[in-house]
Parts: sequence; structure tokens; C-alpha cells
Amino acid sequence: MVAIILVKPQMGENIGAAARVMLNFGITDLRLVDPRDGWPNKKADAMSAGALEKMPPPKIFANLPEAIKGMNFVMATTARMRDMVKPVFSPNKAMKEIRNRENKGEKTAIIFGAERMGLINDDIAACQAIINIDTNPDFSSLNIATAVIIMSYEYSKAFNENKSREPSSNKKSKSSPPALQGDVEDFLCRLETELSQHHFFRSEGLEPTMKRNIRNIFTRADITDQELKTMHGVIT
Amino acid sequence: MVAIILVKPQMGENIGAAARVMLNFGITDLRLVDPRDGWPNKKADAMSAGALEKMPPPKIFANLPEAIKGMNFVMATTARMRDMVKPVFSPNKAMKEIRNRENKGEKTAIIFGAERMGLINDDIAACQAIINIDTNPDFSSLNIATAVIIMSYEYSKAFNENKSREPSSNKKSKSSPPALQGDVEDFLCRLETELSQHHFFRSEGLEPTMKRNIRNIFTRADITDQELKTMHGVIT
Repeated sequence: MVAIILVKPQMGENIGAAARVMLNFGITDLRLVDPRDGWPNKKADAMSAGALEKMPPPKIFANLPEAIKGMNFVMATTARMRDMVKPVFSPNKAMKEIRNRENKGEKTAIIFGAERMGLINDDIAACQAIINIDTNPDFSSLNIATAVIIMSYEYSKAFNENKSREPSSNKKSKSSPPALQGDVEDFLCRLETELSQHHFFRSEGLEPTMKRNIRNIFTRADITDQELKTMHGVIT
Repeated sequence: MVAIILVKPQMGENIGAAARVMLNFGITDLRLVDPRDGWPNKKADAMSAGALEKMPPPKIFANLPEAIKGMNFVMATTARMRDMVKPVFSPNKAMKEIRNRENKGEKTAIIFGAERMGLINDDIAACQAIINIDTNPDFSSLNIATAVIIMSYEYSKAFNENKSREPSSNKKSKSSPPALQGDVEDFLCRLETELSQHHFFRSEGLEPTMKRNIRNIFTRADITDQELKTMHGVIT
């Protein structure tokens, strides 16, 4: 089952509303990264209309890399288009993709940003793809729970649509399974350390951009376990 | 444009949340039948995040027949199935139906029931069809704003699906253009030469597989020009 990850959520009400609609559509894996008002949260309980009592307790993490450790495929939700090189899916196509991957045994997650500013670029760099919700350009700011509603609804719909047929789209012929996110992170940290030691990031101003470029390449590539081993060999 | 009609809504917050998401998806015709706390409503204003100021003022009616006067096609939203002989649509098919009718000049509306009990049978009897939102049978009670979100989202989607347009899936949001395949090949050759000189391919038998692994990573990544420059820097 897909995990719903809220990154630095601010208002308990939104967490509760998200939990309610997740359970409405049969999703119960809620993860919170550094919630502003801590956890548990009475406003979240009230707004969930009983969902938080029925679901397993949300898992709390200090940062996003911890929250997605062990995941194979993570998608970032955004209402704005970003200058980032990632595949962009509509909610409908995104949830079909996630269902197809789950059918192959992959672990998947969708991440949602905080109320005020959404996801930061570093969060998105950690994901394999972007989900773009097409909204009114004159009034595009979506409530965080609204984004969760649309994904939960489409996830439930994709299950019903998939039931009678085999997964088809974008299937890669792979013998090696996708690498786990913790392993990808380890590799990226090692690469950055090596590059730093060899004075690759000469200009300090460019360092964040260059790091993000490199991260984008390897997260987008949907790298397999075998390929990651090869890349470790390349660094060595 | 479809009208969104809330029948006897109780909480101002839900009216505001509905208005916000309507405008998110470009719908501005909001009608309220006998709102419990009257109108205007400060809680609705606050929750709408500015949408109620930007939209034409909601029209207020004493009862449902007044609110749907002059409409050609009215659909009732419900999470429960009813013992009523009406056509039943999924949200997706319902919004396609509404778009088709609008294209033929019909006036359309979707009605939503109150928080506590939803629509009563008399309300549903006044409609031409039912929209059924398929939810978790163990936790099926949808917030009224959630139902409005799903319909507004599907209504917007149906418009986009009707337009003859470019396929949107897998579209990349890029500022940097994709690298040319010749440049990618040059990079890969350079990488392979460097690795070979540094005795990376120790075991001859594995060399083709390792090369293929590396090539898969960089071709699948759909690398941009800027990223390719970064990777050349990494090798250097």
C-alpha cells in the first residue's frame, strides 16, 4: 500500500483531514516528517472524524530521507511546475504507475509539502517523479488536504481500473529490482564526499546546484540494485 | 459552467473550503440552499483563503426547487447507494456527461447534502442522475468539501480530456534542454575510457554487463545538457 508522507505539516487540522480521507479510500500508512506542533495532536484527532483511532498510528520521522528509507518509488506532489528534470505525471496516470509498481512488489510513497510553501527543491530531488495537479492559474494554491484527497481518490480508482487487466505502462524489463532509497542515499553521500575531497565543488556558490544536478540524475534514473553496485565500483 | 449547490450546509468552514477548491478548478457558480448559520458567514470567508472575495457572491435559496430552476441536468452526489431508479455514474463519467451536455448548451448542476445526513430522498428525486463516490465500506462518511473537491477536480479534468491536446504524461518540466544523443555518447565513451585506464573492468567477462549497467543509468535518466556538463566535471 502506498504511504502518504506529509513533510513538515503545520496545522493539526490538515493532518486530521488527510487521515480521514486516506481511510475513506482505504489507505492507512501515514507518515509525518517533523510536524510543527509535535505528535499526538488533538486538533488532528478531532478533524479526522475517528480515522486516526481506526488507523495504525502515524510514523514520525525527523527528516525526509528517514521517512522514505526502504522505498522503491517516491513521487512528489506539486501545483507549480518546477525547473527540474523529472518525469511529470497527472494524478490519474501517477496512481496507475504506482499501482503497477506495487503489483511488481515495489514499495511506493507520495510526499506532500507544508501549507505555506509546499515542497522545497531538495525534497523533490529525493523523488523519482513529480505529480502535477492542473489548477486555475489565477488561484492555484491547494490546501494540503485537498492534494491528499485527489491522490487518495485516484489511488482507489486506479485499483478498480486495474483489477481486470495486467499492468502495462512504462514497464522496464529488469531482472534486478529497483534499489532501495536508503541505499541510493548512501551512494549519493559517498559520491558527494569523494567529490568534495577531490575539490570538485571549487566554487562554493555553485555547490548546492551541482549537488542537486547529480542527485536528480540518480534519483530520476530509477536505479536498480545491480546498477548501484556498479556505480560504487566506479567511485572506488 | 456547472453550478455547485450545497443543500442545508451547516458549518461555514465547509462552505469556505468548497469555495476555495471550486475556484482552484475554475468553477465560480456556488449556490446555497438554506444555510444553517445564514449568509454571509465569517468562518466561510476565512476558510476560503480569498476565493469568496474573488468569486461572484454565492446565490442563496430557500429550497432546492428554487435553486435548480432553469437547469437542464442536475446530479446528486452520494457516498451511499440508494434504492432509487436513477442512472448512477462514477465521478469521472458524471463530469464527462456534464461537459458533453454543456457543450450542447444545457445548464447543469451538482448537489451536495448536509454534513450530518447527506441528501434526503426528496432531494435526490429532484435530480436526473446520481453520482456515487466509491469509498471504503468501513469508513465511508465523506466530508462535504471532500465530495466537492472530487467533483471539481473531475470537472476540470473532463475539460482537459475533451480538448484535443498534446499527450501530457511523462512531460518533463525542464529549463535546461535535453542533451543531444551524440553528446551523451561522447560522455559515455569518455567515462568508459577513464574507467578502463583505471582498471575498473578487472574481470573481462563482466565488462559488457558493467558497461551496459552504466549506459542504462544515463540513457534512462533522460539527461539534460546542464547535467551532462556537471558529469563531465565529475570525471575530471
